[in-house]
Amino acid sequence: MKPGSRDPGPNWVAAPPPEDSWRALCKWGAPDRSRHPNPRLCRRLQAFFGMDDEAFRVPVRPGLEPVTVAGGPELAPGLRAELEAALGPENVRTEARARVAAASGKGMLDLLRLRRGLAERLPAAVLHPRHRDDLVRILAICARAGLPVTPVGAASSVTRGLECPAGGVSLDLTTHLDRILRFNETNQTITVQPGLSGPRLEAALNRAPERFGARHRYTCGHFPQSFEFSTAGGWAATRGAGQNSTYYGKIEDLVVAQEYVTPAGVLRTGEHPAAATGPDTDQILLGSEGTFGVLSEVTLRVFRLQPGGPCRFSYLFPDWERALAAARTVLQGQFGRPSLFRLSDPDETALALDLYGAGGPGLNWLLERAGLRRGARCLLLGSTEGEPGFARQARRRIGQICRAAGALPATGRVVRAWERGRFQDPYLRDDLLDFGILTDTLECSVAWDGLERVRRAVRGFCQARPRTLCLTHLSHGYPQGVSLYFVFMARMDAIPDYLAFQAGLLDVIRAQGATMSHHHGIGRQAAPWLEGQLGPEQMALFRAIKHHFDPQGLMNPGGTLGLDLPAGEAR
Amino acid sequence: MKPGSRDPGPNWVAAPPPEDSWRALCKWGAPDRSRHPNPRLCRRLQAFFGMDDEAFRVPVRPGLEPVTVAGGPELAPGLRAELEAALGPENVRTEARARVAAASGKGMLDLLRLRRGLAERLPAAVLHPRHRDDLVRILAICARAGLPVTPVGAASSVTRGLECPAGGVSLDLTTHLDRILRFNETNQTITVQPGLSGPRLEAALNRAPERFGARHRYTCGHFPQSFEFSTAGGWAATRGAGQNSTYYGKIEDLVVAQEYVTPAGVLRTGEHPAAATGPDTDQILLGSEGTFGVLSEVTLRVFRLQPGGPCRFSYLFPDWERALAAARTVLQGQFGRPSLFRLSDPDETALALDLYGAGGPGLNWLLERAGLRRGARCLLLGSTEGEPGFARQARRRIGQICRAAGALPATGRVVRAWERGRFQDPYLRDDLLDFGILTDTLECSVAWDGLERVRRAVRGFCQARPRTLCLTHLSHGYPQGVSLYFVFMARMDAIPDYLAFQAGLLDVIRAQGATMSHHHGIGRQAAPWLEGQLGPEQMALFRAIKHHFDPQGLMNPGGTLGLDLPAGEAR
Repeated sequence: MKPGSRDPGPNWVAAPPPEDSWRALCKWGAPDRSRHPNPRLCRRLQAFFGMDDEAFRVPVRPGLEPVTVAGGPELAPGLRAELEAALGPENVRTEARARVAAASGKGMLDLLRLRRGLAERLPAAVLHPRHRDDLVRILAICARAGLPVTPVGAASSVTRGLECPAGGVSLDLTTHLDRILRFNETNQTITVQPGLSGPRLEAALNRAPERFGARHRYTCGHFPQSFEFSTAGGWAATRGAGQNSTYYGKIEDLVVAQEYVTPAGVLRTGEHPAAATGPDTDQILLGSEGTFGVLSEVTLRVFRLQPGGPCRFSYLFPDWERALAAARTVLQGQFGRPSLFRLSDPDETALALDLYGAGGPGLNWLLERAGLRRGARCLLLGSTEGEPGFARQARRRIGQICRAAGALPATGRVVRAWERGRFQDPYLRDDLLDFGILTDTLECSVAWDGLERVRRAVRGFCQARPRTLCLTHLSHGYPQGVSLYFVFMARMDAIPDYLAFQAGLLDVIRAQGATMSHHHGIGRQAAPWLEGQLGPEQMALFRAIKHHFDPQGLMNPGGTLGLDLPAGEAR
Repeated sequence: MKPGSRDPGPNWVAAPPPEDSWRALCKWGAPDRSRHPNPRLCRRLQAFFGMDDEAFRVPVRPGLEPVTVAGGPELAPGLRAELEAALGPENVRTEARARVAAASGKGMLDLLRLRRGLAERLPAAVLHPRHRDDLVRILAICARAGLPVTPVGAASSVTRGLECPAGGVSLDLTTHLDRILRFNETNQTITVQPGLSGPRLEAALNRAPERFGARHRYTCGHFPQSFEFSTAGGWAATRGAGQNSTYYGKIEDLVVAQEYVTPAGVLRTGEHPAAATGPDTDQILLGSEGTFGVLSEVTLRVFRLQPGGPCRFSYLFPDWERALAAARTVLQGQFGRPSLFRLSDPDETALALDLYGAGGPGLNWLLERAGLRRGARCLLLGSTEGEPGFARQARRRIGQICRAAGALPATGRVVRAWERGRFQDPYLRDDLLDFGILTDTLECSVAWDGLERVRRAVRGFCQARPRTLCLTHLSHGYPQGVSLYFVFMARMDAIPDYLAFQAGLLDVIRAQGATMSHHHGIGRQAAPWLEGQLGPEQMALFRAIKHHFDPQGLMNPGGTLGLDLPAGEAR
């Protein structure tokens, strides 16, 4: 991988994995798609991790073997017959692959396990409910049998939200419960079933005139990095955020109404814009991660699609302090919000310029000359949206603020490169893991006055470990604080090492007063930390609500959200 | 009251009422302030209600007698001693006037009762807790004694939220729990005790440089009509909205964190800008109207005060349909939100032009000539806020939309007159009630596609009743719908007639699918209707939460929020 050498470069696994392989399950997104790290990025990582070209010859545990499962929970024959009678036999599946797929997300622990052929914490069966009545029937049958129930959307959870430590059944909501039920142009809302995928929802809204006879085109405004492999139900169940949520709002700002099938009955909230009628039931259900019941319908706000598209901007700041001050001025400004607003710290900036093809020596020389020193400079990528006049004016104000803080406009190429890569970057992780470089992420939210304290502590923890890269960016911004997003890279192999590393990070994040998640959710990953963050009083409240909806404790049991954490697991 | 006559006009009660009188309690706001209806408004009402000048000579039941209470609940001597030992004797009050004041709000039923010398549903004592520890002590003592506890702020509830049908103690939070605890300019937040009044909070923020050594001046952005007689705790407990909430947000958008003292313990939420850590506890506590516990601290977002002030606008539309269409275009627009946005229907427009001094025959002639016919034309009042460039651009866009819908700009005098009257209008009610004209209000929220159905049904109900005025305005707007605010005027005297009228209105509002409140809250007034609106499943959830916090059912008991509605009261 020396520049100009004849070295063929790393031996990336380029062919799509066999359909029945572990790799087909653990690879990000579409098995036939990849994003190989570019040579400049590779060289930088090689140098950082002290790896020679040989280290990139033979992929380690690529997981190409067929999925097999030894043992695991089984449905009692009577129960199986009952479920088959209720749903049709084709909607009750017990094949190994289906069970592994339903219980596996896309977190690093999932990947490490699957590459090793470890299929743990599986359901006994995967059910494919056809409609709400099926959900009601399934919950009734499971209540009688004491059988756990775990709802599953597109299975891109990165928080171990899909594991079935108590067995039971997983409900695949993407097979049949994936329809658009109502589009209401007057109210600018759309009501969909939980298993509808992001791209299908967005395509329908973009084509609203053709699809619904609407007067205008619309967008859902919700684009998480997992967009292509996410569902409306998953967004709501995890309290997710799209990459443009600084303008459009997090999912809790976008949900207008929900219908939930719970063991205690079917509950539906009203489609009202606001109310003063006691607690906000939607805000109780959002983020409940399948522990209260199964989301069966969700009504979302939609936005007029603006034909001009976003106004993009990018700036390079001389240092992190000035970049942060400018970011706060922008986000506390009263001129509207940016849409994308992503500010990288110096370490991430260096890597990002490589990743987005703007890290060459020529550019570096120019930047240094302009006082933007490598190791100090920080990259801000962003966009404004809305009606053209509004979007342009907001971009202009942001530009004024950034320039006043000593920033220089960066090439528009960088934002476009980021946009092209926005849904592709996770594929990088698979290639790097093939050669022993583990890439993981954590996010948290924190008030402005705690931001730098959290970042320093997390970096300090990583720097105490040999050759561990910690890249940080401000991923979503608010007037009162931000979401801090950390990307970690390290050569790490053993699962216990990985879990210990992650636990240490979660310890640090909590100790510094940040939340255990901003938009990934809690799942089982951060569950042992949640009570320590929220306090026993809030957890007792959550458990009381859980008990109300699910007195037998059958909904997504086994520690999710810390509600029924196994003894001794709390941190 | 004939134009040009020597008639001295209505015999308004102008002198401040005796301090110890019922009138001093039931009059809006400051006893020494009044707003008498102007002659043009009087003539219009006289004509509508068929009242001659004689009818305005002798005030009916002005309530000038001293407050006396016969009987009512009493504290057992041991309990009184215990409370006095805990709080100091000066903070345990049992005088009649104090007990009546604590249990009376400013709803029409309060006024009708107080003017008749009816002091019902009183507490046995009014306690004045000094700090959080006092709240903890009081709840512990009351739990042991089985004594109900009702928190009270500035007592401007219009939903019967302060009545004590089960006796017990009221907690006056305004005496000592009225301090500013922390101002954080970096995070743009302020943390206050619940009894702090709106004007004191706003004054402190406006004077932040002098008061806190801040770099800038701030505003809380929350200005309900009751602003002068409201507290931060009352805003949060009722899920209130300010008149500028279309820009700043409702109180649930402004609250960052809360501390609650409940019978189950002290609960505190974190000051994070957003999270994905399960249900949103703040959104469970907001709007709980004292039924879960006592708010002891609240952290609010604050906004930079913009030196230029708001950009005002007002338009007259030729008819309601075109006005509504324009309002929806504005509120669904993607150029920022207006701040004040108040659209009156034709009946309210006619009265409002009189009220704001723009209803003269000359102006009417001009408007008719311009195609804005009396009985059809609709008045939009509004403002935009934010940084000057943003506010001006938003006002310009609103102007374009309004003119495209056939509206003409109205005189700026109207908005300024409205602003001068915004906190004074409720005083009109007392003068009119002195002569038998009852003025009452209800609000609800509804999606755009239900708005006109609700308005027609409510008007239809009123029109079926002789000489009953129904004025409607859109008081707060959202992309998905609005708050509809109704003002009713009728000659009505007997309390049962009033209650039957109100019940009929609430029946209609619910039957048409609107919420039972948008920002006043539920209290005991709309409580019998709430379960019918939300459904038994949501009410069961609320009751489970209530039971968790308050297993003995001592917090603001007796029907508030419909949680413990007396048998047979549900509608």
